[in-house]
Amino acid sequence: MATVIQIPLQIRFGDIDSYGHVNNVVYLQYLEDARVQLTHTALADAAGAGAEPHHSFYELVGPELFILVGRHEIEYLLPLQFRPTPVFVNIWVTKVGGSSFEFGYSVAEADGGTIYALAATSMVLVNRSTGRPVRLTDAQRHALETWSGDPVPFRRRAAAETALAGAK
Amino acid sequence: MATVIQIPLQIRFGDIDSYGHVNNVVYLQYLEDARVQLTHTALADAAGAGAEPHHSFYELVGPELFILVGRHEIEYLLPLQFRPTPVFVNIWVTKVGGSSFEFGYSVAEADGGTIYALAATSMVLVNRSTGRPVRLTDAQRHALETWSGDPVPFRRRAAAETALAGAK
Amino acid sequence: MATVIQIPLQIRFGDIDSYGHVNNVVYLQYLEDARVQLTHTALADAAGAGAEPHHSFYELVGPELFILVGRHEIEYLLPLQFRPTPVFVNIWVTKVGGSSFEFGYSVAEADGGTIYALAATSMVLVNRSTGRPVRLTDAQRHALETWSGDPVPFRRRAAAETALAGAK
Amino acid sequence: MATVIQIPLQIRFGDIDSYGHVNNVVYLQYLEDARVQLTHTALADAAGAGAEPHHSFYELVGPELFILVGRHEIEYLLPLQFRPTPVFVNIWVTKVGGSSFEFGYSVAEADGGTIYALAATSMVLVNRSTGRPVRLTDAQRHALETWSGDPVPFRRRAAAETALAGAK
Repeated sequence: MATVIQIPLQIRFGDIDSYGHVNNVVYLQYLEDARVQLTHTALADAAGAGAEPHHSFYELVGPELFILVGRHEIEYLLPLQFRPTPVFVNIWVTKVGGSSFEFGYSVAEADGGTIYALAATSMVLVNRSTGRPVRLTDAQRHALETWSGDPVPFRRRAAAETALAGAK
Repeated sequence: MATVIQIPLQIRFGDIDSYGHVNNVVYLQYLEDARVQLTHTALADAAGAGAEPHHSFYELVGPELFILVGRHEIEYLLPLQFRPTPVFVNIWVTKVGGSSFEFGYSVAEADGGTIYALAATSMVLVNRSTGRPVRLTDAQRHALETWSGDPVPFRRRAAAETALAGAK
Repeated sequence: MATVIQIPLQIRFGDIDSYGHVNNVVYLQYLEDARVQLTHTALADAAGAGAEPHHSFYELVGPELFILVGRHEIEYLLPLQFRPTPVFVNIWVTKVGGSSFEFGYSVAEADGGTIYALAATSMVLVNRSTGRPVRLTDAQRHALETWSGDPVPFRRRAAAETALAGAK
Repeated sequence: MATVIQIPLQIRFGDIDSYGHVNNVVYLQYLEDARVQLTHTALADAAGAGAEPHHSFYELVGPELFILVGRHEIEYLLPLQFRPTPVFVNIWVTKVGGSSFEFGYSVAEADGGTIYALAATSMVLVNRSTGRPVRLTDAQRHALETWSGDPVPFRRRAAAETALAGAK
């Protein structure tokens, strides 16, 4: 996997549900914050096609557009307990389309040795007024491609698709 | 679709994010509460194979087992705004396995005329001490089968799978 | 207590923390939703001084002003467990000032027999652009006065103040 | 103020409400996480009366007791916006009783130059089985006293109490 950004995220006491683990819903908030941290930080090496290293992806998008979530898929592999030290979200780009793109993630320990969840999100750029999709600019596309990596190694979906394929 | 249970859910002011819509993460909480409302309510017509109508599915599972989420998939179709009246989650069962089963959902208006999101969840029954899967009992299976319905009519996944199939 | 509005609120599974009770933070969200339900519902009997019964307090405030929270005080009296049926927030007004007012609340069973928490909030009306306080209109004041009731019967604060007074 | 512990807290995108600021309810979660970070970290200099520096306050309390919130009081001074860098919660102890104690907090910039909120919490130690208060041990008391500082400089309450005192 070429380029993976690793975002440390504090676990909150309130993330833990009555089962004593990080609640399944909260993982989606971790993914959201990984996206937001990534897009609010200076592009640095991902700058190009007109964007400066000090720009953030969020600034490239600007106040007139929304980046909306179109779809999430998440697999839970291991329960995650409360601890005062952060957990890590690895985030990368798995696809860049005309006005949409996809993030892949793993929620894991810093060294990648333990993976708590794998996930994928489809994002779409839309105009705030009209709600209609807007094409990615070259600078946006350049940043997304710098962040691109392998498909998410989902375990359960792969099994399902193999089964489907076998049934044909 | 044979049997769909419709659960009214209050939208909270805190569900609305800075974009002015129900945040994408919060939908997963709506799904969770639909599951919890369904499983904490008397089985009524879904009782059988030893369960009484006044039992809840939660009681059939008992305190020694967890019902864990293995996987979620969700598609966002329309933004949902704050309002003092509830939104509705339709919930049904799409698959029953040995120790696992799947829920399908739509987040929608009461009459089904407007659908905000479609989703699916894989659940697995595990022992709280060992963490190992536990087989569904006949009474649990009976209830789940009473609640069963059609596959979730995902729009984007369907397109992706068609593309995959075409590529073979 | 003259006029108390009672708002049913659904408990969410995610409201429960690892102690097995509704988390202390979540009560503040219940108070927020009681305020929002009250202010987004038609004024009915609280209309007057120019407001129509079909108006909501929120409409009287309009899009150019914020109603901000200045201060909260909350006492927790009994733990609250998850259940599929709602808990009730009783909400009333304890004070109306020039550009501010105060809500009193109890989080309780419908019949008032069990009280889980008592709380008070100072609200202030401010201009969204300048952030400066804005005077309540006659119609707003009329509604707030219709909703007014006794001071919140805090138990621990009262003790503290008696102690303070005794120490003088 | 003698001893103040400063806890950095990540702001989450989901903390921001439709007004574009950190929601008033979320501040209470920041206070909770400051308490939890403080009590889950090694005591270090606060060890004594039998506790070792590597122990945490949480370990001194043990699994048979709950530390419950009895009361919160919070004043909001300035709105707080989303940013990828943390905000800081300063936390200290303002009172130690027989089986209870009080925390004071400010939510602020690292240098204390900007204060977003001031708050206080009464905590009580109770037995998980009986729900009855349990006396603080010497080691717990020692740690709390090491963390002790000035009363919280509330602005609005002070005004109210002065008024009350004047009325006598």
